[in-house]
Amino acid sequence: MRSILKTSVAVASLVGWGTLSVSAAENLADVMKRRGLSQKDLLAAAKTYTPTGGRDEFVVFSSGGQSGQIMVYGVPSMRLLKYIAVFTPEPWQGFGFDDESKKILDQGKIDGREIRWGDTHHPALSETNGKPDGEFLFINDKANPRVAVVSLHDFETQQIVVNPILQSEHGGTFVTPNSEYVIEAAQYPGVLGRGYAPLSEFNDKFRGAVTYWKFDRAKGRIDVEKSFSIELPPYTQDLADAGKGPSDGWSFINSFCAERYVGGIEQGRPPFEAGCSANDADYLHVINWKKAAEVAAAGKTTKINGHDVIPMKTAIDEGLLFLIAEPKSPHGADVTPDGKYIIVGGKLDTNVTVYSWEKIKAAIDAKQFASKDPYGIPILDMKQVIHKQVQLGLGPLHTQYDSKPCIAYTSLYVDSQVAKYDYCEGKVLDKISVHYNIGHLMTMEGDSAAPAGKYLVALNKLAIDRFNPVGPLHPQNHQLIDITGDKMELLYDMPVPLGEPHYAAAIATDKLKPLIRYKYGTDSRTGLDSPFAVRPGSEKIVREPGKVTVFGTAIRSHFTPEIVEVNEGDEVTFHITNSERAEDETHGFAVSTYAGNLSLEPGKTASLTFKADRPGAFSFYCTEFCSALHLEMEGYLMVKPKGLVDQVSAKATDAVTYTKADFDKQYKTNLDTQTVIDSVVKYIMSTNYKDFPTVVALVEDAVDQLNFAKESRDKTDDAAKKGDWQQGTLWANQWWQYQVKAADIGLRVKTYLEEHGAKTVAK
Amino acid sequence: MRSILKTSVAVASLVGWGTLSVSAAENLADVMKRRGLSQKDLLAAAKTYTPTGGRDEFVVFSSGGQSGQIMVYGVPSMRLLKYIAVFTPEPWQGFGFDDESKKILDQGKIDGREIRWGDTHHPALSETNGKPDGEFLFINDKANPRVAVVSLHDFETQQIVVNPILQSEHGGTFVTPNSEYVIEAAQYPGVLGRGYAPLSEFNDKFRGAVTYWKFDRAKGRIDVEKSFSIELPPYTQDLADAGKGPSDGWSFINSFCAERYVGGIEQGRPPFEAGCSANDADYLHVINWKKAAEVAAAGKTTKINGHDVIPMKTAIDEGLLFLIAEPKSPHGADVTPDGKYIIVGGKLDTNVTVYSWEKIKAAIDAKQFASKDPYGIPILDMKQVIHKQVQLGLGPLHTQYDSKPCIAYTSLYVDSQVAKYDYCEGKVLDKISVHYNIGHLMTMEGDSAAPAGKYLVALNKLAIDRFNPVGPLHPQNHQLIDITGDKMELLYDMPVPLGEPHYAAAIATDKLKPLIRYKYGTDSRTGLDSPFAVRPGSEKIVREPGKVTVFGTAIRSHFTPEIVEVNEGDEVTFHITNSERAEDETHGFAVSTYAGNLSLEPGKTASLTFKADRPGAFSFYCTEFCSALHLEMEGYLMVKPKGLVDQVSAKATDAVTYTKADFDKQYKTNLDTQTVIDSVVKYIMSTNYKDFPTVVALVEDAVDQLNFAKESRDKTDDAAKKGDWQQGTLWANQWWQYQVKAADIGLRVKTYLEEHGAKTVAK
Repeated sequence: MRSILKTSVAVASLVGWGTLSVSAAENLADVMKRRGLSQKDLLAAAKTYTPTGGRDEFVVFSSGGQSGQIMVYGVPSMRLLKYIAVFTPEPWQGFGFDDESKKILDQGKIDGREIRWGDTHHPALSETNGKPDGEFLFINDKANPRVAVVSLHDFETQQIVVNPILQSEHGGTFVTPNSEYVIEAAQYPGVLGRGYAPLSEFNDKFRGAVTYWKFDRAKGRIDVEKSFSIELPPYTQDLADAGKGPSDGWSFINSFCAERYVGGIEQGRPPFEAGCSANDADYLHVINWKKAAEVAAAGKTTKINGHDVIPMKTAIDEGLLFLIAEPKSPHGADVTPDGKYIIVGGKLDTNVTVYSWEKIKAAIDAKQFASKDPYGIPILDMKQVIHKQVQLGLGPLHTQYDSKPCIAYTSLYVDSQVAKYDYCEGKVLDKISVHYNIGHLMTMEGDSAAPAGKYLVALNKLAIDRFNPVGPLHPQNHQLIDITGDKMELLYDMPVPLGEPHYAAAIATDKLKPLIRYKYGTDSRTGLDSPFAVRPGSEKIVREPGKVTVFGTAIRSHFTPEIVEVNEGDEVTFHITNSERAEDETHGFAVSTYAGNLSLEPGKTASLTFKADRPGAFSFYCTEFCSALHLEMEGYLMVKPKGLVDQVSAKATDAVTYTKADFDKQYKTNLDTQTVIDSVVKYIMSTNYKDFPTVVALVEDAVDQLNFAKESRDKTDDAAKKGDWQQGTLWANQWWQYQVKAADIGLRVKTYLEEHGAKTVAK
Repeated sequence: MRSILKTSVAVASLVGWGTLSVSAAENLADVMKRRGLSQKDLLAAAKTYTPTGGRDEFVVFSSGGQSGQIMVYGVPSMRLLKYIAVFTPEPWQGFGFDDESKKILDQGKIDGREIRWGDTHHPALSETNGKPDGEFLFINDKANPRVAVVSLHDFETQQIVVNPILQSEHGGTFVTPNSEYVIEAAQYPGVLGRGYAPLSEFNDKFRGAVTYWKFDRAKGRIDVEKSFSIELPPYTQDLADAGKGPSDGWSFINSFCAERYVGGIEQGRPPFEAGCSANDADYLHVINWKKAAEVAAAGKTTKINGHDVIPMKTAIDEGLLFLIAEPKSPHGADVTPDGKYIIVGGKLDTNVTVYSWEKIKAAIDAKQFASKDPYGIPILDMKQVIHKQVQLGLGPLHTQYDSKPCIAYTSLYVDSQVAKYDYCEGKVLDKISVHYNIGHLMTMEGDSAAPAGKYLVALNKLAIDRFNPVGPLHPQNHQLIDITGDKMELLYDMPVPLGEPHYAAAIATDKLKPLIRYKYGTDSRTGLDSPFAVRPGSEKIVREPGKVTVFGTAIRSHFTPEIVEVNEGDEVTFHITNSERAEDETHGFAVSTYAGNLSLEPGKTASLTFKADRPGAFSFYCTEFCSALHLEMEGYLMVKPKGLVDQVSAKATDAVTYTKADFDKQYKTNLDTQTVIDSVVKYIMSTNYKDFPTVVALVEDAVDQLNFAKESRDKTDDAAKKGDWQQGTLWANQWWQYQVKAADIGLRVKTYLEEHGAKTVAK
């Protein structure tokens, strides 16, 4: 199948190239010429191209920006694998459409208001010993201060928590080295608890804050009761990071607009941007979260909206909170893998500043403070705690790390470049231009205690002319860069088709162990057994006054039940369980013009509730192409009009009559089909198919189908015994349908075995 | 910048390969070995890899399935360029969030019910003389019978029309050769007008239908008043196609379940799938739409829900409607580029059937009918009108065409293959395995009168093991296949990260001429001037009892106004116009916890209305990273609590006081910055920059920024004259902000010119 290129004649032997056929060589040269590819381009292609069935080395979780979702893609292929719905309803996944996920989204209501979008910014992978462990993913919503928890077992959003005190946030999510806490820092100051005060009282009544959300790993949920916040000054807090190693127990938060400027361009005042960047320095907040947790646990908090808040004064008195000057408008406070340094870039500066944790700690311990801020917070002497400043270029923004010691990469927004440098020695090593203005960047596991090196992704903000034009709204541009050598090499431009990502986190492929199927009858949104699951054969329709509840199943290619009669005005709920075991045998469910979409992966139970307020005959159908008879996977919701309510309807009669001749013909077809199936089975059994887990799963599925075929054959034979050629023919056809499904799987297995070099084994 | 690979020493000269450096050769071999790439893989990589800034040859519009959206990607790079929001709200694009687009979505209400998703199936490009013209795109919603119109000028959804009579559809959208009509055929039979009848009256009361939506190209909208439908039997109509050339004026619609079987597995009956595939044949509907339009215009219709419907009997009497048997469960009725044949596949068959239009027309003209169906529709003799049947394999589903005459490609669902064959001669030429079960396929412009050949995309339904696992819900797999040679070659596997696409349509890149920016103040959803647009300097806040309306602007990096005070309970509307001219300078707008997201591309005006029902101080901000000072692009919505309503609030005062020394320092910085800018300008002017349209646009933008800088400098100087060092320093900083923006653009220009080999020109 894949031997299309005949590599018959070797004509040249390059150093390390091996043999190359005439035809391939000709073709390659022709293709490169036709497509205008340089040798460098070809090398980049070879470094990124992933043939069918190949796996990526890393999986990236990227914020989806204003889409409210998370984007998942592979490195180095840069192929998008999935959008995970988080804050915005998304019908393909049924998220915000099935009853179960509506409950998740409803957790995100703010002060009673339903919010069905988010501005996702910074995803964070759960960590064990400072390294991503592939279990959970957290992400924040800048527009509506919230944090979501995604399970990496099924890539579904499991929880949304609303920040109880902030009206705006940005500096989340960042996790502590064992995911004890998820950090969420404020952005634009507000009155804590989302209250009101006039802007004339900005300095006194407006505040920032940072929230430490307690994560309960066993439950896979944030424990709201055990979470707490610290009141901060109305500097506009920005990004954060948790310390690790020697700095474990501490966290670091940037800020901008330490000027506390309030704009008012409509009054003739210079705008926010002028007043918020007038001074040369803003403040890095240094916070002892371990001690803060103890202070909170000791009850030294005030309650705002029922939430524990450590007042700023208490934070100062308890020695939890310190400030250090940082060059203006920073964006990124990034702790080195060994936890010894914190690197901060100032967007309106040309340097990154490398702070020494050892020096910070020494100054704090010695209470050597340069001054206090207007709120009484001790300010450390910047010069005293700096390790180095490294001049990189215009607009240093965000820093991540290499697997090699002392090597960091910082994005330069204004210069549209990435700088590689030695932060121990303070020496620039390389720069590469990107296209264009770069916001964050990401190396592989590059914000963890053990970066994996190899690749860097530049999350560029303006694509401008990089791609085929698609109207005024452009895709973003994620550029993949090879960082294995001394010089960075640009490998690939990936357009982002939906949303504007901010931050991203990569994890090695082998750390992810997602499910293939759910345990039978799982409510995926809670991860628990659904009380509404039924097994095939136990389906039922429960009728109460004004309410009809369907407990159904889906299997290729039919729903049970198929006909559901309700009265106009009834509330109707369909609970459907997908009873498939086969990988990727997802079904969907929608009722025309009424409701949808359920996404029913194997083993999942999901529910759809709606009011049947308009009479009529409405079809429902499987919304996921699941089999050759997919379009026939249908049914009817009959909403009886007011005048007919509670009347029992006459059943449908068959429009076509089948005779013994029809029966015999179908029966013969089935026996012939069985012969073909037997031959495929014989072929499979003659190979070492058990060496291929994918095939073993497919064979299991085929056996299921043949068992179903057997059941239909029994019904066929029963009907034939009674001389009921109508039912006999129809059941014979159903038997054949299962045969076709088994054959379909068998052919897939055959192709797989052929393509993967299966061997014949002795009986 | 791109000369990283030094290609210094040529060591080998392959046939056609040219010179290859030692280092590149070593690297390439190493990379291939490390990544396990075969020579065939490398060739495929070279055929698909698109270096930074490169363009794809074709742009594909694919249904997004249950996501309710349209997916846009490039061929051959297979990179996703955009998701276009159609039936489902999507906040990145502001679709369903701004007031303007909510009106579009509200057009899609069915019988008063708000529906905020769709199951998009078959996109169709507008055509001129049977060829795609790149102006409009149509797509249907299977779950809720609707059709949407997308403008390819800005890739935004412009209109949604609800089918007035169907309760379910599938066979849309397909356009007639000059986009006179958009075809939408029913799927599951219902009572026309979405009425009720018991299933016992299925044969008499349930019906199918096909709707011909009249498209008004000048307006870019479907003209609902001039559209009409034809009543059809309760066979489950499926896909359609319009005739062209000799068959222009006619259309063809598949069907399945001509058995009119109604399931009821819950009653012990065999399910739909058994009874709907029991017979060997279904019916191809042959319909004269040109004559039908005349019949409708002549008033020979009945009105259902105010819509013109040609009754089945009238259609028969007027000679509009004929049937031909087709092998069972077909899916795809695909007219050849020359309009002479229609190819139909039966999913439970092994053949495709090639019908001859000449023979069909001759039989119709001669009134040579084999029989009539139960509804009196003439049935043509299948044998008499067939050109060929070609045995391809199991599950032939959908056919598209090559640029070479007589060559077709058909997907084989059960075999998981694509077959290439000569339909004139009835000869199979090649087959290729795909991964896995393929639904539709697409060649470039392959359903048009002039297919472009070159590539084929297999829209596979089950990816199973092709990609890194991402949980129980898998991506789909679109496989790119090279069809230029005699043998098809698999080039690329593209995972689909969102939704399950069904059908796709490709267009040559040069036929698309989308906008880069809107005319100033455009309501993009109507394409007309927004009545709410204002120019910079004319921003205003209009107050009426219970209502505050803001007419604002956005430019990097501030909104005008910045402070908006309202009373608790007010309805608030923000109309924001993006006053940028620069390509890709999009801003966003959201009010924390209240409302968002607006996507404001250059020139666009969009509106956000909400009720300010909770008092407090709420920030608003730009949601699209637009500039170095993006985070400072903020403002406050002050919702005064009930007790303070209508009181005038005291203004904010500055927390920081600036002195003459501060002023002088900033002033000096600005003069120094100007020197740097002047040097960049000098460099640019010394080149042939005018030869690069991208650069010309950037220079225009930089000049804008420098003009803004001049305005701020004037304000700076005015303040200085008055000795107002506070305002002077702040305006000086604003002046500097504009300088930074100009410098940012200048650096981008410099990089661009260097990378594109700009030359120095004589003065």
